[in-house]
Amino acid sequence: MNIGIVGLGLIGGSLAIDLSCNREHQLLGISRRAETCRIAQERGIVHQASTTPELMANADIIFLCTPLGAIEDTVRALVPYLNPKTVLTDVGSVKAPIVQAIAPLWPNFVGGHPMAGTTNAGIDAAIPHLFEGRPYVLTPTPETPPQAIATVASLVEELKSVLHICEPTVHDQAVALISHLPVMVSASLIATCMQEPADTLNLAQQLASSGFRDTSRVGGGNPELGVMMATFNRTEVLRSLKSYRNQLDTLIDYITQQDWPSLEATLTQTQQARPNFVD
Amino acid sequence: MNIGIVGLGLIGGSLAIDLSCNREHQLLGISRRAETCRIAQERGIVHQASTTPELMANADIIFLCTPLGAIEDTVRALVPYLNPKTVLTDVGSVKAPIVQAIAPLWPNFVGGHPMAGTTNAGIDAAIPHLFEGRPYVLTPTPETPPQAIATVASLVEELKSVLHICEPTVHDQAVALISHLPVMVSASLIATCMQEPADTLNLAQQLASSGFRDTSRVGGGNPELGVMMATFNRTEVLRSLKSYRNQLDTLIDYITQQDWPSLEATLTQTQQARPNFVD
Repeated sequence: MNIGIVGLGLIGGSLAIDLSCNREHQLLGISRRAETCRIAQERGIVHQASTTPELMANADIIFLCTPLGAIEDTVRALVPYLNPKTVLTDVGSVKAPIVQAIAPLWPNFVGGHPMAGTTNAGIDAAIPHLFEGRPYVLTPTPETPPQAIATVASLVEELKSVLHICEPTVHDQAVALISHLPVMVSASLIATCMQEPADTLNLAQQLASSGFRDTSRVGGGNPELGVMMATFNRTEVLRSLKSYRNQLDTLIDYITQQDWPSLEATLTQTQQARPNFVD
Repeated sequence: MNIGIVGLGLIGGSLAIDLSCNREHQLLGISRRAETCRIAQERGIVHQASTTPELMANADIIFLCTPLGAIEDTVRALVPYLNPKTVLTDVGSVKAPIVQAIAPLWPNFVGGHPMAGTTNAGIDAAIPHLFEGRPYVLTPTPETPPQAIATVASLVEELKSVLHICEPTVHDQAVALISHLPVMVSASLIATCMQEPADTLNLAQQLASSGFRDTSRVGGGNPELGVMMATFNRTEVLRSLKSYRNQLDTLIDYITQQDWPSLEATLTQTQQARPNFVD
């Protein structure tokens, strides 16, 4: 299969490395930067690389691995050069807005989200086996051609990822809950402490331990990433934040009314529910 | 020094083990259970043990290591047997209500909170060096005799703990922020997910990873402990929860209004502030 990779960064580069293990594939890479193309070819990450879209004319499938905000423009630039049979798939972390934007431009499109990464970026960050054992979500619509889904799914299997197939909105709701909401919840914890008078804040900083460390970790992460989550998954992030606020209000009510049995019942439910999410 | 320990569980037992390293100390233990007294003596954790308070008549200092809810009754039971010079100190995780209840009963009292522990309980959980390098907060009032503070502080030094001295309320505010608020924040995250329809909940459970794991950890902990925090530190837990809710509303407003510069500014501040709390 001729496999195109547009955007040779951490995700695109790592996809190319693993997919090129199958000798039947030809990896064709596109990057805006000639230097990245040179490195990707020199290291054998792709067989051919180019800064212009013509190279994609022979691709059977193309992975769109640009940043979220660039995907639509990338597709518009590619379309004039593509064979109608070519399957497009993206790797963006939000799916409903991407699927809404791309499906009308290219019917043979399957939204995708490989849930793997490191804190590094760029072609130098590309590593083998990045996706092995990790979730890879595909979000077809009722109109997506089954053959396109099957093509992407077969490559997901080669990556040894765990395939999940769901509606775009269900994906966005789930990642809002398990990834985007925790960032806002955790950042708000740190921001709350910062509002305190100096003596309390100083002592809190001295006494903070593993509980605060874990609960505040993702709220102390990359601000650009947090803003990107909120920008692209705004509808679901807002919905989950409002549902969270209702839940918080319930706990505040229990404590205000000293309704300890209800507080204990809720904390017992959360204790029992957590192992369904993580070990 | 004759050192009394009332309550020979994880904290009381571990205190006795470390303090008995100084051969000048005699460790005198009290437990409600005769079996615990036998074990504590047999293992050399204390020199003498008893189920009744008379043993404390010779104590120079007594560590009150019973559960929070039992401290006041314990002191009332001890008082008739005590030498007026005896210093009392407790190890409760909330300080203002304890200091308010005990100081009128025994002026020679210093509130204390060694911030160490394991998930185990009882005399079998007692281990050496539990308090080494950990914070140990003392919360004297303006009326607390300086000599009483000095006596407790000298033993805190023997434990190799890091001594902090502050007002009871400042302690309770600080632990609300770094310990009790995170439990409520984290539990609310899990509870929010549990409100979701089945397809979203199922996918969220499949996709949850390190971010969700860390942010939800303390919310999946012991429910009785969470209720105890809210019960005994109710004023400060409620205050911190309301301040947290305001902070959350600010983030919701930014996202609703698509005010990305303000969201990024907040997330940049939390990223910069977190290392002041934890490594």
